[in-house]
Amino acid sequence: MGDAPARTEKEAIRDDGRIGVTTGPIRGSKKIHVAAKSGSGIRVAMREIHLEGGEEPVRVYDTSGPYTDPEASIDIHKGLPQLRRDWIMDRGDVEAYDGRAIKPEDNGQLGPDRSGGVEPFPHPVTRPLRAKPGRNVSQMHYARQGIITPEMEYVAERENLGRERLAEYNRSGESFGAAIPDYVTPEFVRDEVARGRAIIPSNINHAETEPMAIGRNFLVKINANIGNSAVASDVANEVDKMVWSTRWGADTVMDLSTGRNIHDTREWIIRNSPVPIGTVPIYQALEKVGGIAEELTWEIFRDTLIEQAEQGVDYFTIHAGVRLPYVPMAAKRVTGIVSRGGSIMAKWCLAHHRESFLYEHFDDITEIMKAYDIAYSLGDGLRPGSIADANDEAQFSELYTLGELTHRAWKSDVQVMIEGPGHVPMHKIKENMTKQLEVCGEAPFYTLGPLTTDIAPGYDHITSGIGAAQIGWYGTAMLCYVTPKEHLGLPDRDDVKVGVVTYKLAAHAADLAKGHPAAQVRDDALSKARFEFRWRDQFNLSLDPDTAEEYHDQTLPAEGAKTAHFCSMCGPKFCSMKISQEVRDFASKQNQSAEGFLAAEKLGSETAAASKAAAEAGMREMAEVYKEKGDRLYLPADEVDEPAE
Amino acid sequence: MGDAPARTEKEAIRDDGRIGVTTGPIRGSKKIHVAAKSGSGIRVAMREIHLEGGEEPVRVYDTSGPYTDPEASIDIHKGLPQLRRDWIMDRGDVEAYDGRAIKPEDNGQLGPDRSGGVEPFPHPVTRPLRAKPGRNVSQMHYARQGIITPEMEYVAERENLGRERLAEYNRSGESFGAAIPDYVTPEFVRDEVARGRAIIPSNINHAETEPMAIGRNFLVKINANIGNSAVASDVANEVDKMVWSTRWGADTVMDLSTGRNIHDTREWIIRNSPVPIGTVPIYQALEKVGGIAEELTWEIFRDTLIEQAEQGVDYFTIHAGVRLPYVPMAAKRVTGIVSRGGSIMAKWCLAHHRESFLYEHFDDITEIMKAYDIAYSLGDGLRPGSIADANDEAQFSELYTLGELTHRAWKSDVQVMIEGPGHVPMHKIKENMTKQLEVCGEAPFYTLGPLTTDIAPGYDHITSGIGAAQIGWYGTAMLCYVTPKEHLGLPDRDDVKVGVVTYKLAAHAADLAKGHPAAQVRDDALSKARFEFRWRDQFNLSLDPDTAEEYHDQTLPAEGAKTAHFCSMCGPKFCSMKISQEVRDFASKQNQSAEGFLAAEKLGSETAAASKAAAEAGMREMAEVYKEKGDRLYLPADEVDEPAE
Repeated sequence: MGDAPARTEKEAIRDDGRIGVTTGPIRGSKKIHVAAKSGSGIRVAMREIHLEGGEEPVRVYDTSGPYTDPEASIDIHKGLPQLRRDWIMDRGDVEAYDGRAIKPEDNGQLGPDRSGGVEPFPHPVTRPLRAKPGRNVSQMHYARQGIITPEMEYVAERENLGRERLAEYNRSGESFGAAIPDYVTPEFVRDEVARGRAIIPSNINHAETEPMAIGRNFLVKINANIGNSAVASDVANEVDKMVWSTRWGADTVMDLSTGRNIHDTREWIIRNSPVPIGTVPIYQALEKVGGIAEELTWEIFRDTLIEQAEQGVDYFTIHAGVRLPYVPMAAKRVTGIVSRGGSIMAKWCLAHHRESFLYEHFDDITEIMKAYDIAYSLGDGLRPGSIADANDEAQFSELYTLGELTHRAWKSDVQVMIEGPGHVPMHKIKENMTKQLEVCGEAPFYTLGPLTTDIAPGYDHITSGIGAAQIGWYGTAMLCYVTPKEHLGLPDRDDVKVGVVTYKLAAHAADLAKGHPAAQVRDDALSKARFEFRWRDQFNLSLDPDTAEEYHDQTLPAEGAKTAHFCSMCGPKFCSMKISQEVRDFASKQNQSAEGFLAAEKLGSETAAASKAAAEAGMREMAEVYKEKGDRLYLPADEVDEPAE
Repeated sequence: MGDAPARTEKEAIRDDGRIGVTTGPIRGSKKIHVAAKSGSGIRVAMREIHLEGGEEPVRVYDTSGPYTDPEASIDIHKGLPQLRRDWIMDRGDVEAYDGRAIKPEDNGQLGPDRSGGVEPFPHPVTRPLRAKPGRNVSQMHYARQGIITPEMEYVAERENLGRERLAEYNRSGESFGAAIPDYVTPEFVRDEVARGRAIIPSNINHAETEPMAIGRNFLVKINANIGNSAVASDVANEVDKMVWSTRWGADTVMDLSTGRNIHDTREWIIRNSPVPIGTVPIYQALEKVGGIAEELTWEIFRDTLIEQAEQGVDYFTIHAGVRLPYVPMAAKRVTGIVSRGGSIMAKWCLAHHRESFLYEHFDDITEIMKAYDIAYSLGDGLRPGSIADANDEAQFSELYTLGELTHRAWKSDVQVMIEGPGHVPMHKIKENMTKQLEVCGEAPFYTLGPLTTDIAPGYDHITSGIGAAQIGWYGTAMLCYVTPKEHLGLPDRDDVKVGVVTYKLAAHAADLAKGHPAAQVRDDALSKARFEFRWRDQFNLSLDPDTAEEYHDQTLPAEGAKTAHFCSMCGPKFCSMKISQEVRDFASKQNQSAEGFLAAEKLGSETAAASKAAAEAGMREMAEVYKEKGDRLYLPADEVDEPAE
């Protein structure tokens, strides 16, 4: 693998000389573990942001795993602790077996190795788990048996966060028919999973995950894509991108590697990932046939599924909806087929003029999924690649097939989510959601954006963030991030962070609009900090404290400016926040409501002539009171630090 | 003013040793001037993006003025040519007079000058124009007289752009009751201005502007704020920020300067601005009383209006809706009053316990507006500063007053737009638009964002871009940009560009969703370029060609990669776009529709047993045809440049 460069971020860095990943707490925060209310001993990871001035700390959802816990021992050559191992074994329905032997082609070693190879992970899974014969180990299966698993219990506690404080809040929002509870119970989670409205991706061979749910009645989740490709990137970067993206909020990570060393790269990622990992197995299968789509076979694909199932991939994108009859529908499009998996299958279908083997073998795939508890992410291989192609015949034909397949998978108690577009103008977004809910029986929708215009390459995290916030509001359960490099190049570390933070804010905007009970707690805490000039709290409460502070310091670098009662917009001399405080103080000192305040003057210019003289006397009097009691507007020079001019 | 630093961007730079502003064409584009259809001789500035491969050039709306025209002679010490001067004089209703003498306090010179001062603009307006006694020179007044002004004619031609190509497009969109025509005629513009549904900001003393309209039936516009403040920035930067922001698409610019040298800075900006300039006159008035809000008087404010009217400010933000009775409503808010102008007026009202002098003197202000054709931008001084405060009593109370004032201004044929929030969660955005349209009689709405969450300082161009796209779709006519530095510091040059491009894409997403007839032309051209691997066209058609190319080059720097038939996501070996092309070629060679394509196999697995053998034979036959006729999937090595790995 070679030595990775030392990380240059301000965070505490662990670099043991071989691979460096970013560790240490997010600034101003502490990793905490909250005991589940059942007393089962389950401890749920969260992050607590500490505030100044006696304010209550704010608990936020945390996806970063042990990497942000200073008490955790991190050694990526050993992998993370297997949090779920005992839960899985205790159910008594799995068996360890001698896994499939690794073949050279698993790492794309079909010819002379130009890439130098990847150091194998030192402790790969050699005796993976699978369901005992005749058993089904999916969370959906347990849910339908009425069993509340530890995974469900974990999810319930994790989703609640600050909902204990709910009494203070009036719920407000428009959830478009979702059924978001005031408080999430384990039974609620079980019920949502049983009816297919939520999934808990949890391959029994990826026991390192902290359980999480994807569903419209839970917080909106985001996914980050990583992966090397034929032209760039390397494995050390990919492992760190996973750690880095979960640090900033990625709820799941998809490894979209192509080219060489796919197997070994994935092993490093999975063994070190606290979040579910998704893949598109057809990518690796294609590598095994030297990139020639028409040489793909069901046997090669099946073998790849087993290979990845044994490693612990939590969900598979399967493009089984790209059926032969839909392929020519894409011919008249502006941008044809833009999904890589979709185009592989289209090419295969064309070359053989046969129905897709993914569609024909769907039930065979389902058998594999239920033996490991891998969730389907039914791929939208015919998603629109441009505004012009949105909501067309090809796209919706595939969606109907995905609906058919959803119900087929559910017959076997296998978890399903549905992938969605893509490029869609705003007025066509809602139709996507409405149709998906209807056709796929409320299975979780998982969309890429959508991008709301095609004209801003370099800013597609934003063109798509706009669409993502909207479709998240309408009911999409997970949003696949888009980075600034979309359509142009491969994202680097900074791009990954910008993509994750953008999607995190879009998901949060959706949570607010849907009316998630405790979503506004963090907004309110931050706004209050802003109003009270608690600069450090404002930074620490933000999705990206480092960038917030860096931007602040570009204008007002002095350390004292972080405690000054003014901001760089207005400067020390005049400040609207300060005046607001005076308004508040004045109203409070006078102990007056708006009505009382106005009693003396009856709406100013509309005052009846008869009472005008009295009113004016009242006004003069109140003005005197203000002058005597009001705070001074300006701080004396020695109370503020002189800012740089 | 001092020497400005040389500009470091790749664009051609004019630096005459004193102030450098960015000039030269945007890459791949040419400034053109299109003659108005009336034959009146009016020539409307546009930008044409030239494409490769025999594709038609794409015309786009251009706000950059002469700075991007290589044939224009730029000397910012002289100012821009006065495009509208003759039109104004020809109407015969204005007179030149000896303007108000400049006072030291106009530049904030109340005491020892710490800032060094600003070099006065060499050719200030000393004999400004105003309406002859009893005349009204507003565009609204002309419109209501049935007069189509050259400004209206200019706007009509400018808004049409590619609409001649409309026949190719099916209009699609949801405009929420707007009345967007297929084709914009000068008479349509006149009618929209007459009924108050659009404004053309055009102070007769700012004849340098290229006329533009703000209204819900026109393209959605964006505004960029610039301005020095007490703590940072300098005048050279401000002038360049104006040029820089209009280069990337700002339709109007607001000069929000505070502190010293306000008058001289503004003169430099106006004389060199091809777009309307807005200000918040209370900011300067406050400087004149040493920053002590309670010492403001109507006389000082009025004098400031005249000062700015004579310089040529095109629209004034007037916070006349912050009435005394509404002030205490803000006391219970999480973030009180966050508008600077709003808090100044609130403080004044509190200190005097009197109704706002802006409200009481509203008709006096209107008299000034109509003598110069300055448009009202009725300020939302009580806009919410946090998600918690959105759509509250204070905010809507003020909005109702703004509605009252709109109708009062319209009685004098004075143009009006209405400022809007702020911080609003998605589910509360639509209510803002609906209420504004109703209360303010469809006067153009001009919103700041709104920000859809408070938790992402450093990314508030995005939190607000999400809200801006939505409210633009619902009917907002102009979107005031937010930069990444919002809430944290003052935007630099890069921040201004990011803010402008973000808002440009949000406005365009809104145009698409509203169903503006020609909006999708550019999306389609870019998507087609992407599909055909015309990389340069893809860059040039984007809102920010420089960033698009820079991002591309970070992964594939070789010059050859810009003509290669692959992209950095999949690499040269496999490419979904390439396969799509094969699908298209195949469908076209077979001359088959989807139906014909399927004739031989009747939906694959659903084939009736009886016809199955025949169908399979047909499939084999078609597969052979494909193998013979299909394009090769891979380009031979000597046809592609080897990318960096």
